[in-house]
Amino acid sequence: MTASPAPAAPDPAADPAVAAELARLRQSIDNIDAALVHLLAERFKATQAVGRLKADTGLPPSDPDRERRQISRLREIAVEAQLDPEFAEKWFTFVVAEVIHHHERIAQSGSIDVVPGADGPAS
Amino acid sequence: MTASPAPAAPDPAADPAVAAELARLRQSIDNIDAALVHLLAERFKATQAVGRLKADTGLPPSDPDRERRQISRLREIAVEAQLDPEFAEKWFTFVVAEVIHHHERIAQSGSIDVVPGADGPAS
Repeated sequence: MTASPAPAAPDPAADPAVAAELARLRQSIDNIDAALVHLLAERFKATQAVGRLKADTGLPPSDPDRERRQISRLREIAVEAQLDPEFAEKWFTFVVAEVIHHHERIAQSGSIDVVPGADGPAS
Repeated sequence: MTASPAPAAPDPAADPAVAAELARLRQSIDNIDAALVHLLAERFKATQAVGRLKADTGLPPSDPDRERRQISRLREIAVEAQLDPEFAEKWFTFVVAEVIHHHERIAQSGSIDVVPGADGPAS
C-alpha cells in the first residue's frame, strides 16, 4: 500500500514579502552575532589578565564563591531581559569551561603563562 | 616518612594593589557578561521570529548552507578580534543547539508555535 504523492507545495521562498522578512531578521541575527563575538574577544582578554595576575601572585586559580555569585547575577539579568535563566546559566557554564580548556591547551604548548583553573578564566 | 610542612605563604589577597587590580578586572568581566546576556536575549527574540515565520509559511526549519556561511563569517570576525576562531565556532554551535533544545521544550509544552529545527533558531 503506497500513499498518494503529496501535492507540490508552493515555494514560500518565492514570496518576496516572506523572503524580505527572513532577510531582515537574518541581518539582525548577523549583526548581533558580530557584536557577541567582539564582546567574547574582550571578555577573553580580561580573563587572561585575571589568569596572569593570579599566577603571578600565587592566588588560587579557582574561586567557587565568585562563580556562584556570577551565575546568580546573570540569571537575574536574564530574567529582566526576558531570556530563559536556565539558558543563561548553561551558556555561562559553557563559556567558562571552554575558556579553561583553551587556557589549558595554550599552557600545554607553553606559549603563555596563564595557569588554568576552575575559576581563573571565568573570574 | 612525612614531608615537612610547607612554609606559610603570604596571602596575596592581602596586597591592596593586587586586590584592587583583581576587582577592576572582575568589574569589566561583569559588565561584559551583562552585555552578552542582553545581546543573547535580543538574538533569541530574532531567532524566535525566524522560527515563527518559517512555521507559518511552510519553509523548512533547517538551512545548512546558511549555517555554514554563519560559521565561516564568525570565524573571520573572531580572527579580526583576536579571538580563537575555534572557540568562536564552538560557541556558535553551542548557542544554536541550546536554542533548538529550548524551542523543542517549549514546543512540547505547546505554549508557542515555533517549529524547532537544525537551522531555524540559528538562522
